[in-house]
Order: sequence, then structure tokens, then C-alpha cells
Amino acid sequence: MTETNPLIVFTPSGKRGRFPIGTPVLQAARALGVDIDSVCGGRAICGRCQINVGEGDFAKHGITSTASHVSGVTKVEERYDKIRGLPAGRRLSCQTQILGDLVIDVPPESQVHKQVVRKEADTRAIELDPATRLCFIEVEEPDMHKPSSDLERVYKALHDQWGIDNLSCDLSIISDLQKTLRKGEWKITAAVFSRAPGGGNRLVAIWPGFHDKVFGLAIDVGSTTIAAHLTNLSTGEVTASAGLMNPQIRFGEDLMSRVSYVMMNPGGEKEMTAAIRQALNTLAQDVARQGGIELTDILEVVLVGNPVMHHLFLGIDPTELGGAPFALATGLAVTCPAKELDLHLNPGAWAYVLPCIAGHVGADTAGVVLSEAPHEQDEIMLAVDVGTNAEIVLGSKARLLACSSPTGPAFEGAQISSGQRAAPGAIERIRINPETLEPRYKVIGCDKWSDEEGFEEAIVQTGVTGICGSGIIEAIAEMYLSGVINQDGLIDGSLAEKSPRIEPHKRTFNYVIRAPKEGGNEPLIRVTQNDVRAIQLGKAALYAGVRLLMDKLGIEQVGKIRLAGAFGSHIDVKYAMILGLIPDCDLAKVQSAGNAAGTGARIALLNMKARDEIESVVRRIEKIETAVEPMFQQHFVEAMAIPHKTAPFPQLSKEVTLPPPKDVVTAGDDGAERRRRRRG
Amino acid sequence: MTETNPLIVFTPSGKRGRFPIGTPVLQAARALGVDIDSVCGGRAICGRCQINVGEGDFAKHGITSTASHVSGVTKVEERYDKIRGLPAGRRLSCQTQILGDLVIDVPPESQVHKQVVRKEADTRAIELDPATRLCFIEVEEPDMHKPSSDLERVYKALHDQWGIDNLSCDLSIISDLQKTLRKGEWKITAAVFSRAPGGGNRLVAIWPGFHDKVFGLAIDVGSTTIAAHLTNLSTGEVTASAGLMNPQIRFGEDLMSRVSYVMMNPGGEKEMTAAIRQALNTLAQDVARQGGIELTDILEVVLVGNPVMHHLFLGIDPTELGGAPFALATGLAVTCPAKELDLHLNPGAWAYVLPCIAGHVGADTAGVVLSEAPHEQDEIMLAVDVGTNAEIVLGSKARLLACSSPTGPAFEGAQISSGQRAAPGAIERIRINPETLEPRYKVIGCDKWSDEEGFEEAIVQTGVTGICGSGIIEAIAEMYLSGVINQDGLIDGSLAEKSPRIEPHKRTFNYVIRAPKEGGNEPLIRVTQNDVRAIQLGKAALYAGVRLLMDKLGIEQVGKIRLAGAFGSHIDVKYAMILGLIPDCDLAKVQSAGNAAGTGARIALLNMKARDEIESVVRRIEKIETAVEPMFQQHFVEAMAIPHKTAPFPQLSKEVTLPPPKDVVTAGDDGAERRRRRRG
Repeated sequence: MTETNPLIVFTPSGKRGRFPIGTPVLQAARALGVDIDSVCGGRAICGRCQINVGEGDFAKHGITSTASHVSGVTKVEERYDKIRGLPAGRRLSCQTQILGDLVIDVPPESQVHKQVVRKEADTRAIELDPATRLCFIEVEEPDMHKPSSDLERVYKALHDQWGIDNLSCDLSIISDLQKTLRKGEWKITAAVFSRAPGGGNRLVAIWPGFHDKVFGLAIDVGSTTIAAHLTNLSTGEVTASAGLMNPQIRFGEDLMSRVSYVMMNPGGEKEMTAAIRQALNTLAQDVARQGGIELTDILEVVLVGNPVMHHLFLGIDPTELGGAPFALATGLAVTCPAKELDLHLNPGAWAYVLPCIAGHVGADTAGVVLSEAPHEQDEIMLAVDVGTNAEIVLGSKARLLACSSPTGPAFEGAQISSGQRAAPGAIERIRINPETLEPRYKVIGCDKWSDEEGFEEAIVQTGVTGICGSGIIEAIAEMYLSGVINQDGLIDGSLAEKSPRIEPHKRTFNYVIRAPKEGGNEPLIRVTQNDVRAIQLGKAALYAGVRLLMDKLGIEQVGKIRLAGAFGSHIDVKYAMILGLIPDCDLAKVQSAGNAAGTGARIALLNMKARDEIESVVRRIEKIETAVEPMFQQHFVEAMAIPHKTAPFPQLSKEVTLPPPKDVVTAGDDGAERRRRRRG
Repeated sequence: MTETNPLIVFTPSGKRGRFPIGTPVLQAARALGVDIDSVCGGRAICGRCQINVGEGDFAKHGITSTASHVSGVTKVEERYDKIRGLPAGRRLSCQTQILGDLVIDVPPESQVHKQVVRKEADTRAIELDPATRLCFIEVEEPDMHKPSSDLERVYKALHDQWGIDNLSCDLSIISDLQKTLRKGEWKITAAVFSRAPGGGNRLVAIWPGFHDKVFGLAIDVGSTTIAAHLTNLSTGEVTASAGLMNPQIRFGEDLMSRVSYVMMNPGGEKEMTAAIRQALNTLAQDVARQGGIELTDILEVVLVGNPVMHHLFLGIDPTELGGAPFALATGLAVTCPAKELDLHLNPGAWAYVLPCIAGHVGADTAGVVLSEAPHEQDEIMLAVDVGTNAEIVLGSKARLLACSSPTGPAFEGAQISSGQRAAPGAIERIRINPETLEPRYKVIGCDKWSDEEGFEEAIVQTGVTGICGSGIIEAIAEMYLSGVINQDGLIDGSLAEKSPRIEPHKRTFNYVIRAPKEGGNEPLIRVTQNDVRAIQLGKAALYAGVRLLMDKLGIEQVGKIRLAGAFGSHIDVKYAMILGLIPDCDLAKVQSAGNAAGTGARIALLNMKARDEIESVVRRIEKIETAVEPMFQQHFVEAMAIPHKTAPFPQLSKEVTLPPPKDVVTAGDDGAERRRRRRG
């Protein structure tokens, strides 16, 4: 590399160096540590190492670069172009020799550690750095003059051609090795996994000849639904997605009823483990079919789930999670062969399960943390995943705390008189006119509001069947804003005089959203005093958990809020704050995080350092058990009021005018109207 | 540890230090790095840490040591003594506090790395340092004020109480963990394995409370027989041994016929793998029953075998070993869960298979190397394991070579007219009177020679049924010494005139050892010209292989010889040398090594560093393939003569007078007698 050798500058890295004439561009790139992909190791097979040759004077680099400064298109390159197609101006860097000074651009898709943009608008891209990679190798043939075993020559090829050492492999690989080598005429593709327990590199799969399909599954095992994303480990792209109801529902609707099932039915945990694993296999088949790949092309699976789901898919009896002290069998990340989970992927595939944080704060929350990265924030972030339990993480770079709070099933539309799952026909948006108390609403599956022309025609198919979780939040918040309920959540019976929407019901009142037409068989959709109470209980539990962590952290204000999970994705954050589910915050800084748990699984799938990261963050998180915190009960009681008995909501008040406190008329024990004073 | 603290000297190590009054002796020992065992971690449960307190003036150490310089017997120590018995003068070092200057003797059985004396007289003891050890731990109970998972607290206990880090475990351990911890009331015994691929420590088994049984199996899988030794990993003692015929014999008597079976019968390798694994399980059950232990007390298994056996028990198709270039699937040592070999031991048990050296030089030879240690010798050692193939290792500290040579089945008594396996009734020793040509012999199962009083009565039960491998060696060597055959192996027909023992047979002659009594149905036992030829072919192949390695090493003389394997154990080395099976050597330095392959397996089982050692030595061994060595054929032809056509046997000649070369009368093609000249 003398001064007279041509000068090469690679963009965007800016790495530069001089190389003798005739040096392949790929070789120069490697010598300089330029990030450039290759599966075939420079044999014009994989097409991953494509580059663009700069054309013109590059004053910045002091170089004149032109196509005549590289060698012509080779025969193998021509063949590659014919079979797989090379975009205009692109060359395979392995086939392109340096003849003069060059500026070489490495496009993003040719970089190994490319940035994968997440679907959701977000500042945090994922750096592609998967734990499994494919390596095409040419293996020396056996030579009686220098006897050595086939596996030793494979390891030597991986060392010589890819710099991979400290290798081990499964017996099944050794069993297949000789036939594969001979079928591939001593050229095979090896999949190497670098995250096996203990360390080292593990040869997990082999194919004769060149093979360039390597996929992973990111799976979020929820109590209700399971979602799987098939992801291309070479590009980071989600190739296919599928969801399925959790078949364990037949053993119990919610988590605790499933734990009870195990307690009551010896061996019940085995049934539930079998059910969930079968569902995981169904999902894997589904996404593989959608993606047009073989199950054996799936080399990795990353799983998240709440603690009970986590234990059940790992085959651990969840009984201990059903009562104090709520001890997890393990909270550590689990790395095990996928076949130990009875998953029928590539036989050499590995599974990674994110760590659990505590007995009620699971690997799903670890996924949320990996996705939303509170541990990287300068200002305090609150991340909440709302389900039957709310899993709460609060903190910043400096310190992170987590707890869970028993919100109950109301937020999922359960135990609400007109409640239902989010499905076509469910009311998801609602506004109440504070003058007339008339509602307008939208239902899932229809773009029109109920007061728009053609609404009734548009919903003929689905009808209006109930209120989903986000709908009930808006309904009650709007009831509060319009004065139908007061700060204590009491329905103001005196309004019955003003509007037929307020109707007496036993000793209390209802607010009627939609009455069935005469002769129609649609249900009566209304909000009862009990419904309001159920939501108050849930939101008070959530707020109390958050407040407890704020106490521990010694803060009065959070900087930003992320609402994760299906419920968190659908609610209007403004209404959540009006109800006081979450503490006061600049509304612009409150966002839905979508399926953040699933995103976290995908991050861990695509970037192996993210696994170290989340394991280390989870170790650092301070785990708070609300059940033993004396302040929790007090916070809970104070949080029953809307939005809160004592806490001011200054930021919210800038955007929304909250009604003043008032006493309301409600039905008495004897059905007679009487005045009740605000409590406290 | 000031100058005024008592001074403690430990013997035999000589390690010394000062400790405050009240320090437990075990703690002082650990602080000084004194090798002292403990499973229970100082709780007076395991009794492994026993010591003797020195009594008197120890001028050498400048110390007066007396029983009054230690604290009195504690209650728990008394309890231990009552239940399990403490030898007179012994104390549990964990219960014994330092009160004054002391000389403390650590008896061998209290040392972790005690020397295990091998059964055979040998200078090389095995240092006990197994890959699996038991650790009794007390685990913190779950605490809602400091939530953490059960597994994390187990890892913490292993760290705090045993200094073990970098832990991982199987899912099955996690599944059992919560019940085991609660059953043991937060005290469990953990088995930790430190040789998993990649590194780190693996928690492989747990028991509630205190458990101190940890065993391993050393297994030598021979083509004909399989031998298993159950070994106590705490003491190094062989608790039970058992052997079994290899059930694969039904697929083919010798290795190549088994490989042919696979080639002819698709799936045949799976049948043979299943057969061998079933036999291994039978053996495991057998030794466990003999040893009075559970199969779950077996935590490790180490296996050796020739390349074909190696491939078959690992589940690898051995077809490639059936023809050039004889490529092994793997020659590397294999470490895998024992359950992957379908072995029903403890579910967490690990298997280790020694490395193979080359396509015909297997893990059994690696076992021989580990046992006989040619790589540690100053003078050249020849180690030979004779079977259907002879596996040959030659060299010293400086350089080591290996090859195999196709000796054929004659040494095992096969293809010999009166040949049989070594079993009661087989002739194993024979002498021929050079004057009368009358033989005297011994048979297996009888202590008397055939010319002793009472011999015939003693053998009534077994009869005399044939000649075993070692018997045929002696017979032919004695025939040579007595002139029945000449240096070319030709039976001298002219002697038929002198003795009826020489009888014509087709175109050649036989030597009759034992004729059936009239009316008896015992077989005629004789040595035919073909028998002599078969042995000559075998011994020439063996010698040629050895000679080839001597050429490569540039030597004319070997320093010592070890004969391994069943055949090697039974032959009289003098006769082996007279026949020229092995090169000339000081007879005092030629020894049988017994089942050295099995001993090697046992060493690897008891000492994990021995695994590194053999893996590194095998890498260093220069592998020679006789099939591509032009000199092999020439060496083979020259080695057909007895003891050899050209090589002088000066050392042998000092002990035995070898007859001078002679021409002999033999039967001609037409049956007529004719003179034949010595060839060459």
C-alpha cells in the first residue's frame, strides 16, 4: 500500500486507504473495516456486496473517480446479473478490481449492520446484528495424505473464510454433515449462532451449496391473543405476521383463573403448555406459508409474555405466581433450543425469552422497556402496559422502577354491562353534548359518526353491539365533562328531568347511549353506575401504582408517557388523562407505543446486543411489590376521584376545561332522591 | 492475621498462616488454598472435611500442637459422629475452631484433588478433578420487599457459598426448581457441570436437602464386547463393572461387515445405533443395581470406541469409513447431553466422547494414549491396541505418530481352524518339547497344565474346545522354536517321520495339539498351514505399520512397548516378540496395558483437565494412512518371516535362542514331497 497505489474512499463511512492495482473492492473494504455484507464470501453468488462506483471529481476527497478505474464485468458477475438482476450502475464488489482512484458508495442494503426502520414513527431504529448468520464455505476434500475429519475441515473453513472460532455443534449436524458436504460438492452454507449459553459459536444448521434464507420469529404471547412476526434476519424486514386467540382461554378467561385451573387440576399446567405450544406451531406454519419459506428457514424465535404465559410456554408450573410471595421460577432470560419448547422450526433453531422483571411484571414489560427505552431517557418516562394487570415502569437513565397494579378486567370491556371486545359493532369513540346530553359515537367497522348522514345504513351489517375498552373510557370521560357524573363518579339523577338519557335503574341511574329501535333486537347500550365504579377501581389502581413509583423516585411530574398494548393503542390519551388513569403530563408527550412488547421481541431478534442490554437493564430495575407497600392503599383511595381527589392536573387543564366539583342527586337506598355531599 | 494470632501449618501441603482465635479450621484451610473437600459447605453434614490435629512438638515447623489448641466437639459434630461415625482422632474441620498453634493433617480422603490409584500397578495415578460436583446450598426465601426469582437466588447461593459463576441450566431444572426448593425447605443440593460446550458452569441436577451420591460411567464400546465401569466421582473408586456382548454382532461379526450392512440396508445404521444404545442402557442399569444406586445418581458418562463404534453410538452413518478416503464425520471430542444418546441416566447427565485420531484410529486409541501417556515419555514408546485392526501409536514427548494396520481377525481366534474366543475350554498357553515335539498346554478355567496330575479330571466340565488368540500366538511361536515351522512359517513335513503330531493334510501338514479320545466327541485341535499363514499375515501387517512409523520418526529401536486390549492383555509378550508381532525391545520394557482404552475413559471421567490434555495431544498426533504409503507393502512382505526377514532381534536374542534358518520339506502341489528353498 505505497503512495503510488490507487486511493479508495468508501462512503458513507469515509474510510480510506491505498491498495495495489487488481485488489478486489470487497477485499479493500474488509481490510479497512468497512461494513459490507457477504454470505458467499466473494464468489458472486449472494449479491449482498453490491456497490456503486462514484463518477466525477470528488473535491472533498481529492479524488477523480470513474468507471474506468475498475475492472470490467466478469463472467460470474454477468451470470449473477442474468439470473438475479443487478440494478443499473451496481457492481458486485467481490468481482470488481481496483484499477485507479475510486470513491465507492456502499448502499444501505449492502451493509451488514444496516439500520432497520421500525414501522411506527420513532426515532430509534434497530441496528441489524442478529445472533444467527449464514456463511457459505468451501470445505477442503478429505486427503489420505493429511487425514482429518469432515467436521474439522468445516471448522477450518469457517475459521479461514469467516474468522469464526470456538465452534461447537449438535450431534444432528454431525449426523447430516457427510451427506450434505458430498451433495454440495464440498460447498455448503452454515448457520452460526453466537448466543448459546456459556458462549462460543454454535453451528446450528447446514445446507448443501448456497442458501440465503434465514428468518426469525418474534412472538408476543398474550393472555388473550398471540401475535407472531416472521422477520428476515438478513434485511430486518417483517415478511409476514399472524395472530391467534390464545387457546388457553378454554382453561380460564384471565390469568388467575388459569393459575387456579392448575391448582385444581393436577397436570393442568402440562395441558396448558401443550395448548400454547401447539398454537405457536400453528402460527409458525401460518407465517411461513404466507412468507413462502420453509419452516427449516426459521433459525430463531424470540418470545415475550406476562409471567404466567412465560411460565406456561416454558413448561413451568405457574402455581407460585398465584399467591404471595409471587416468586417466579426464573426471571432470567432463557436461551434454549427451540425444540425444547416443542417448536417445529429448523431442528437447530434457538429460542430466546426476554427476562421477567418480577412476579407480576413479565417478559412482555421487558419488551416494552427494550422498545421504549426509558433507561436511555434524560427526562422521566412512564411506560404502562394495561391489561388485567397494569405493568408499570417509571424512570430515566439514572434510575428505573417497576411494579404491577391489579386494574381488573374493566379496561378490556369485561364486567361492563354493555362491554365487549374491540370488534366490528363496538362503540370506540363517543362525544356528549354538554347542553343536550345527546351522544354521538363511532363504531368499529364504520367511518361515519352516528350523527352523520348514512350512518344507520352503514352499520346495518354489524349493528351497534356494545362498547369496547377505549369506548368506555371516552364515554365516562365525556359523562364527566358534560356533568352527567361528578368528580366522585356519581351519575347526577337530577339530570333525568332534563334528558331521557338519564334513566333511573334500581337505586342508581344509567346513561343511555343507544336504545334499540322499536321492534329491533339490538341491545340497549348504556353506562350504569356500576360500570363507572368498575372503571374507577381500575383507573385508581393504575394511578396508585404509578404514584407509588413517583414517590419512590421523589418526583411530582413525569416527562413523557408511553401507553403500550392493545388497550393503550386504541384509547385517546386525552380521555385517559381526563379520567386520571395516568398522571398529569404535557399531552404532546403522551403517546401510544403500539404493541411495544412485540416490538421489543423483534429488537431482541434482530440485534443480539439488545439481549445483553435488556438483561442488564432488568437487573438494574428496582422491583416494587405493591402488595407490601402501605402507601398503595391510600394512593388508591385518593385516585378514585376524577381525575383525582388531590392531585392538580395543570398540564391537562391547559387543553381541557375540567368541570368544577359539584354535589349530585342520586337515588337513595329507598329509591327516594336525596342530596349527597362530595366525600371528603 | 497479626504475629500474635496462632500459627497453623497444614500437612502434607506445608501451607501455613496465622488466623484469629475462633477461626474454623476449614475456613483457614480455604484462605490458604489448602486442598480440602466439602459438599455441605461447612454444615457438619457431609463429613468430607475431616482432619487430624497434630499432637506434640513439631520442630520442623517450630510449633507445639495439641488437642487443647482446638475447640471442643460441637453438638452437630457429635450428631454426625453418632449417625455416620467419625474415626478416632478425626475432627470435622468446619466445626473445629483454632485456639492456639496447630499442625493439621489433611488425610488423602479429605482432599478434593486426591490421587486415585489405578488398579493396575502403574506409576501414574489419576488426580481426582471431575467435571461434575455437588454443592449443598441454602437458598434465600422469596421476599416481597426484595422481589427476585427462585433461580436467581439459587445462582446467588452458588456464587456466595461456592464461588461458582457464569451459570446456566436446562429448562427441566427450572421446571423442577420451585417444588424442589420448597420440599427441601430452601436447602438443596445442586450438581454443577463445568465442561459444557462454549464454557461456563451448567446446573444439571437438583435434589431437595442434602444429597451426596454422584457417579459416572466409563464405557469402552468394542466391536465384540462393551465394558462399563460405574465410578464414584467423589472418591474415584470403581463401584461396579459389567460387560456385555455388542448386540450389533447380529448385523455382522466384524466392523467392515457392519459397515456393509449399512450400505446394503438403508436405515441399517439407525438399527445398529438403537441396538448399541439399548445395550448401553442395559449396562447402566446393571452397574447401578450392583452399586446400589439410582440411575439418576449417574451424572456423567465417558465413552471410547473405534471409529465405526464411535459413529454408530453417536448416531452417525459409518458408510464413509468403509472406503477411501476413510473420512470421519468428526474426530473432535464430543460433549453432549447424555439424553441425546438416548441414555436414561439423570436427565441432566452429560456425555463425553474422546476424540478420534483418524479414520481407522479411534477414540479407543485416544483412551490408550491418555492411559499410557506416550506424549509424556522421554524415550520412544510404542502403544498398540490389537483387534481386527491394529491401532498403533509411536513416539515420545517430542513427537507422536499414529496409524492403523489391517491385521485381520486371526488374533481374535477367528479364521483359525481350531480358533475360538477366549472362554473356558480354550487353550491359552502351550509349550512344545523341541526333542519329542510333544505339547503341554493350559486351558482357560483350569489351573493345571495338561501334563499335570488330575488335568483330565479338572477339565471334564469344559472339555478342551479350541485355541484362543493368545494360545495361537504361543502355539505358532513354540512351533517355530521347536522347528515344527521354519522362519518362513512352513510346517516341516519331514518331521512327520519323527512324530505323529505332524500329519499330512491335503497338500500341506498340520501340527496336532490334541486328538479326541476314541469314542469322545471333543474336537480335533490342531494348527494348519493356513492357520500359520493367517497369523503371519496379521503379524506382518502389525509389524509393517509399526515399522512405517519408525521410519517416519527415523528410529531403529523403540524404548518401551505397551500392548493394550483384551488380546494384548493375555498374550505373553515374549511370544509376541518371537513371532515378530512387535519390534525388538528389552522384554522387561514390554508390558500389557490391560484395557487401556477403558482406563483412558475412566481418567477422562475423573479428571476434566485430562479432556483438554487428550484433545490437545490428539491434535498434535501426526496421522499416517498406511494405504497411501508406498513403503508399507514392502515392510509387510519383509515382516512375513519369523520373526522378520531382515531385522535383527538383538534384545530378544539375549533371552531366547532363536533357531537358525532352515529349509523344510513340505507337501507339493501334487501332494509329493519336495524341497523348497527359503525365499530371498
